[in-house]
Amino acid sequence: MSKTNNAVIVKELMPPHSGYPVVGKNIAFAKRPYDESKLKVTEDFPLLVKVLYLSIDPYLRGRFDASSYDSYVPPFEQGAPVCGFAVGVVVDSALDQFKKGQNLIGLFNWEEYALVHKSVLQYVYPTPKGANLPLIDYVGVLGMPSQTAYTGLKLVGQPKAGETIFISAASGAVGQMAGQLCKAAGLYVVGSAGTDEKVEFLKNELHFVAAFNYKKEKPLEALKKYCPKGIDIYFENVGGETLDAVLSVANRFSRIIGCGMISQYNAKEPYPLKNIINIVKKSITFRGFIVSDYFHEYQKEYYADIPKLVHEKKLKYRIDVTKGLENAPDVFLGMLHGKNFGKSIVELVSE
Amino acid sequence: MSKTNNAVIVKELMPPHSGYPVVGKNIAFAKRPYDESKLKVTEDFPLLVKVLYLSIDPYLRGRFDASSYDSYVPPFEQGAPVCGFAVGVVVDSALDQFKKGQNLIGLFNWEEYALVHKSVLQYVYPTPKGANLPLIDYVGVLGMPSQTAYTGLKLVGQPKAGETIFISAASGAVGQMAGQLCKAAGLYVVGSAGTDEKVEFLKNELHFVAAFNYKKEKPLEALKKYCPKGIDIYFENVGGETLDAVLSVANRFSRIIGCGMISQYNAKEPYPLKNIINIVKKSITFRGFIVSDYFHEYQKEYYADIPKLVHEKKLKYRIDVTKGLENAPDVFLGMLHGKNFGKSIVELVSE
Repeated sequence: MSKTNNAVIVKELMPPHSGYPVVGKNIAFAKRPYDESKLKVTEDFPLLVKVLYLSIDPYLRGRFDASSYDSYVPPFEQGAPVCGFAVGVVVDSALDQFKKGQNLIGLFNWEEYALVHKSVLQYVYPTPKGANLPLIDYVGVLGMPSQTAYTGLKLVGQPKAGETIFISAASGAVGQMAGQLCKAAGLYVVGSAGTDEKVEFLKNELHFVAAFNYKKEKPLEALKKYCPKGIDIYFENVGGETLDAVLSVANRFSRIIGCGMISQYNAKEPYPLKNIINIVKKSITFRGFIVSDYFHEYQKEYYADIPKLVHEKKLKYRIDVTKGLENAPDVFLGMLHGKNFGKSIVELVSE
Repeated sequence: MSKTNNAVIVKELMPPHSGYPVVGKNIAFAKRPYDESKLKVTEDFPLLVKVLYLSIDPYLRGRFDASSYDSYVPPFEQGAPVCGFAVGVVVDSALDQFKKGQNLIGLFNWEEYALVHKSVLQYVYPTPKGANLPLIDYVGVLGMPSQTAYTGLKLVGQPKAGETIFISAASGAVGQMAGQLCKAAGLYVVGSAGTDEKVEFLKNELHFVAAFNYKKEKPLEALKKYCPKGIDIYFENVGGETLDAVLSVANRFSRIIGCGMISQYNAKEPYPLKNIINIVKKSITFRGFIVSDYFHEYQKEYYADIPKLVHEKKLKYRIDVTKGLENAPDVFLGMLHGKNFGKSIVELVSE
């Protein structure tokens, strides 16, 4: 069997508000031979990595929108591979700081062997020493979603013991970490998810005080029931009706951590919010953030805190691993549809 | 002519989203004799003031809503006088810190002679020494709306020279102050208002870079035209369509100062916002605040800065003064309808 450099590519960008990407049309697996002549490090591409694990994240959806002005990351390039957080190992390097055989975390293309452009090296760093965790954990329990939970809580949420936090998409990669960190800090933790199985996981395994299935209980009624003291912090992952309900029951001086709005990414019409006036009436802070803009402030503390909690088994972290790059398009779509359970990861198995 | 203690009273509270208050039905002038036996200081009401100038402010509208849970201030008491920021003079005092004849700023009832409950004394203080400004200025250029502009900019806006600020209701009491402070700090200042006369005032007297009449130009088109570098700070006074347009053209890391949403106070249906996802996409901070929660942090600096700017004639401040307590209900409604120009004040003329 000859060596390959298969990839998952962006076939066709989409107009905004045009629903879900379609496998085969917008995102597709492409079989490609390994071409040594093209995989050479240069001044512009000073690093070549073999990609090991892909982090499959909701924010990637935004990069399939052809609009260029209204997102924090530019659209993907049509015809080029998808690119996202991943774990890799150095195959060749023109840089002093990266050595052949070294394990890295960074923004890598969804291909078996990826050249890394110098412009993204700011997001590439070696797996931290001393953490002593398997490599998959760098896209799992220590990956970007967990960094996001940690950063959002420090930067916006500022949780205090005794407060109530509500987390939407709480069994997702960000939500489960946010919930457990807040439980450890003495908060009253409530979550929502889209299946009964996920709700049971939140209650029985992560020990949230309460959790509900938003497809069975209307968010407004549920929040009134499960958050008897109102909401002090909302970890916002879904937007739409849930956000509107939170605005309605939020307390004065509450904080909304604007992390994502997965219900809106594929909506053909945005949900028409009606309760935004509460931001003024209740002195609410609603702040959006992108982890890469702030994580450096918390990085040291993070790599001290989280591996310790993992080793002490104080942190449960559910991952949903699929083997084979060829499955990545379906895993991505499944994640957008909420079919995964926990953090979605694709493990590349090469020959 | 016998002495009176006429008042403006809250006749009937309103269900939320039920339009404008009606003079005679919800708010009414009431003729009352002066009754010395009732106007005695007690332990619960340790201060009696003669009220001189009333500050007529949009936020008072919220206190006519009968709902009790979703506003930062409780509803007014039916049958009791309206209460708001005002200037008064001490008639009698059971407290060491206030002496007969002393001028005070504070939350006083809309009546000629007002007893002050001990629970609001935290919002009552003497006119600062050294400012050397006429008393009316304490509800005008130095009043609560100016304090609001100052506090909103310090707490949320954090303006930096070269940035673009857009201010809605910019000729209003808060807006004109926010705009001039930002001009002085070297920002690119753009405003909107509801009449051509107000727009001319913003451009020709306050020297905003640009201003537009939102009744003649659609906010989204206007903002694209007048804010060529996008918006870094939005001083939010109106809500609705304007807020949605701002979310659309706002820059990454922009700040929205959630001060008021006058377009929504009387709306029978809230405006259905569609662009809130930009808070996440663009890392926007949208923070509501109430001046009384934060002004103490800036008070010293404020009373040093603003009178100095007034004396140096570096601050224009337009007020709209009406004489006679009996006119206060109409002035309040006129202000809600945008019929005033500048800060609305009622001057009490007693016998």
